[in-house]
Amino acid sequence: MSGIPKTLENLIDEFSRLPGIGRRSAKRIAFHLLHKTPEDSKALAKALVDFVENVHFCSICHSITENDPCEICADPRRQRSIICVVEEVSDLIAIEATNSYRGLYHVLGGVLDPLSGIGPEEITIDSLVERVKSGDIDEVVIAANPNTEGDTTAMFIAKILAPFGVEVTRIARGLPVGGDLEFADKSTLSRAIENRVPQL
Amino acid sequence: MSGIPKTLENLIDEFSRLPGIGRRSAKRIAFHLLHKTPEDSKALAKALVDFVENVHFCSICHSITENDPCEICADPRRQRSIICVVEEVSDLIAIEATNSYRGLYHVLGGVLDPLSGIGPEEITIDSLVERVKSGDIDEVVIAANPNTEGDTTAMFIAKILAPFGVEVTRIARGLPVGGDLEFADKSTLSRAIENRVPQL
Repeated sequence: MSGIPKTLENLIDEFSRLPGIGRRSAKRIAFHLLHKTPEDSKALAKALVDFVENVHFCSICHSITENDPCEICADPRRQRSIICVVEEVSDLIAIEATNSYRGLYHVLGGVLDPLSGIGPEEITIDSLVERVKSGDIDEVVIAANPNTEGDTTAMFIAKILAPFGVEVTRIARGLPVGGDLEFADKSTLSRAIENRVPQL
Repeated sequence: MSGIPKTLENLIDEFSRLPGIGRRSAKRIAFHLLHKTPEDSKALAKALVDFVENVHFCSICHSITENDPCEICADPRRQRSIICVVEEVSDLIAIEATNSYRGLYHVLGGVLDPLSGIGPEEITIDSLVERVKSGDIDEVVIAANPNTEGDTTAMFIAKILAPFGVEVTRIARGLPVGGDLEFADKSTLSRAIENRVPQL
């Protein structure tokens, strides 16, 4: 567009690639940065680079971490006989914020969804089975979202873990059905964890 | 927050400083980037750095540019006897997009607003007076927003330029009163430019 320098155009393009940011918002952000000091923009640029260079997935639980294994997997004060299975890291963070769970985690990185072609190989189910096989795990709490895909995934995990004599539970349906775990309020989420019931 | 690496926390902080992005959106963006390649995040980081290192204000019209003077001020095909005065660079871009104006510009970088302490010294009015004094300017079209501050600014400029025998006009009130120039549709904005009337 005439009158817009290329580097500004490019910045607007990059911002509009982000989720929830359209071209108009991207433009607004770029013009906002224009009126700020260069240091403000550089701080954001640095945060981005630091983030991609330092944040990795934990080789045990597949959560995100700067060190491997992650803070939670490496913490000797956590209860090591129980694993809470979540779809995404954001779910783990929501549960941690309740302060009502002190065990370990396993991040699936998605959920079984045959219609979208997401099978057990696309998520970290094999790695969960290995953890259950090789560790002293008494219980696996499934904290998948309370929707069809979550139900399918919970059922699949309960069946695949059945031979290993581990108790498979699921967090209670205190959560609104069809809702999204990440956005539940802390007390609903706490109650759902307390009221977990056997899956099979 | 437990479970969130510091670099992620920092990235979320930086994103939430941007206009229109709350903590929840910032988190969503960060997790989105987590699932993208590092190159995607680095492209955004690079766009930010390129932007702040290469985009400056034009010493003549105070628009943004990678070279000084800017593309428009340096363009011999532009009509050099007419200056369109706008509040912000985004207004200049909106007018350029109509293709109905071929003169020069002057970006005030704000608008007179005594209640917020914005006087003539805070915006580029002195520099506009210098341009009118030293150049062969026949007409100054004021394209300030059609609201109280815009009216005040237009009136002030018309008075301060009166001694120099330049015609001061204002774009027509085809724009909805109280609205924002940047978001006007192209044909309304075109008509407003065509229908400009003398300010005093």
